[in-house]
Amino acid sequence: MNPVSTIFQSFIAYQRTAAIKGAIELDLFRAVAEGSATAEAIAARCKASARGVRILCDYLTVLGFLRKTDDGYALDPDTGPLLDPRSPLYVGSAIRFLASPVIMQSFADIAATVRKGGTLMEAGGATEPENPMWVDFARAMAPLAGLTAQLLANQLDADAGPAWNVLDIAAGHGLFGITLAARNPRARVTALDWANVLAVADENAHAAGVADRFRKLPGSAFTVDYGRDYDLVLLTNFLHHFDEEGCLAVLRKVHAALRPGGRAVTVEMIPDENRVTPPDPAAFALVMLAGTPGGDAYPFSAYQRMFQRAGFARSELHPLPPSFFRTVISYRA
Amino acid sequence: MNPVSTIFQSFIAYQRTAAIKGAIELDLFRAVAEGSATAEAIAARCKASARGVRILCDYLTVLGFLRKTDDGYALDPDTGPLLDPRSPLYVGSAIRFLASPVIMQSFADIAATVRKGGTLMEAGGATEPENPMWVDFARAMAPLAGLTAQLLANQLDADAGPAWNVLDIAAGHGLFGITLAARNPRARVTALDWANVLAVADENAHAAGVADRFRKLPGSAFTVDYGRDYDLVLLTNFLHHFDEEGCLAVLRKVHAALRPGGRAVTVEMIPDENRVTPPDPAAFALVMLAGTPGGDAYPFSAYQRMFQRAGFARSELHPLPPSFFRTVISYRA
Repeated sequence: MNPVSTIFQSFIAYQRTAAIKGAIELDLFRAVAEGSATAEAIAARCKASARGVRILCDYLTVLGFLRKTDDGYALDPDTGPLLDPRSPLYVGSAIRFLASPVIMQSFADIAATVRKGGTLMEAGGATEPENPMWVDFARAMAPLAGLTAQLLANQLDADAGPAWNVLDIAAGHGLFGITLAARNPRARVTALDWANVLAVADENAHAAGVADRFRKLPGSAFTVDYGRDYDLVLLTNFLHHFDEEGCLAVLRKVHAALRPGGRAVTVEMIPDENRVTPPDPAAFALVMLAGTPGGDAYPFSAYQRMFQRAGFARSELHPLPPSFFRTVISYRA
Repeated sequence: MNPVSTIFQSFIAYQRTAAIKGAIELDLFRAVAEGSATAEAIAARCKASARGVRILCDYLTVLGFLRKTDDGYALDPDTGPLLDPRSPLYVGSAIRFLASPVIMQSFADIAATVRKGGTLMEAGGATEPENPMWVDFARAMAPLAGLTAQLLANQLDADAGPAWNVLDIAAGHGLFGITLAARNPRARVTALDWANVLAVADENAHAAGVADRFRKLPGSAFTVDYGRDYDLVLLTNFLHHFDEEGCLAVLRKVHAALRPGGRAVTVEMIPDENRVTPPDPAAFALVMLAGTPGGDAYPFSAYQRMFQRAGFARSELHPLPPSFFRTVISYRA
């Protein structure tokens, strides 16, 4: 690409977020998926202006989310199933969290954030107690998390697993633990999170038919008593919020709560040791700079060191394809 | 790219804008260009935290604006000259306009904008009289415009041109007309814009040494008397703000102001007839939807029709490589 275009497109990248957010709010992808093809037909379906729909659909075509032919617009075959609300793969709701006012606000002044070296948000930003953003997170991110949770269940061979006693720390939507319970009929899950967030996880446990093997443990991961004799402790997209000492405080509690032979399972945005590849997890470090006092996208070596300091015997890094997440499996021994 | 990544990156694209804006505000590219390579050295130079600089530089490496090696960070050879403030090719100031609060605000609710079919901003948005955003525009966009103006001067063979009498409509920074005058010592330029904006053009005319052949014509392109007997009338990034009837009102005045044999020269974001390629001009239509009541990124056929309706004999479309602008040359005959 022309280097001026490269720069120009970064300068105006916020327009991409605004456009796809607008399309999701208009339910435009559903209209196209259901067969409305022309700007006029989509406009009628979305109760919008034909001029506005034509310009937005052309823009979405430039981004690659729509295809345009003489007959009108159609969903892109690759991303379409992820943007069609009727599809089991739909992840569009994630924009309600990823481009929520509170997270966008944390990016309002990156120069000042870099000067300070941490979030400008008050009260520790994303990590403050009972922050309602995590209720929104639990609802908006559930579809994307549900896909990742299936990948994790495959990786742990949940269907063939023994009678696991699982602790899901900062469970959020609860889907990582719930999916293990759904795939392993002998597994029991304890979900730890703020009480307001666990209400969402509870709904998901009922919907998955595992409510009788699902227990809520409300409170802070730093202060609540975890209980003991867990086979698996899940740490999914949680440790990135904290500095190493914060992580260590949690990991020591995790180590104490595992039975001998138990495993801590960390699902995270983990860049390579160079911290600049692959793009999704590497870029995620900036989200933590903007939103937390000391969080980071830690490379595997940092997790290895932290788990070792907390008393774990060893840690393994696993990819979780096709997702951009990676898994660290740490053995209590 | 993984389709989940494609979608995810659009959802969080606003973070790219925030990051590069922060880097420019920190003068980080200058620090790297001058030889600060490690996060610590750059942090000392930019009066920022090493942690914040490390995370921002890694992010800029993911975007491709920096290279990272064991020795630290360096500018990317392609985009570096455009981001190094010491370079004559520097265009970083453009972010002050392209990601200004007023333009970003116009993207705050694209769903509502598409429902309405035009800007949600009051008083006609960007097109209201004496809007101070155009003073910011004139200062911030001058470097990028200066590069494009040289390309236009090449295309018109300004160095070998006769004693042109040039009218530069909505001159802004004035650089399109000023560059013609700088390259053609016999050319005289009349710059039309709001009085507050012409103050910036006046500075640029003095800096270019053409002030004695530069005349200011303050007012609205819709109402001010243009004068007559112009050889060239420049319409640079102006017509896109208006609907076809608005453009036509201007073009009729342009036609009347040209001498026989004179030309109207339109420099614009002009997509192909399909309105979805090439990406930069095609995407620009959304900026006009968000910011104006009836503006657009018109394809050539629309300009051809408008100039014909205004009385012009014929119009030609020319590329303006390597920029993403195109030129329409319309002959009064």
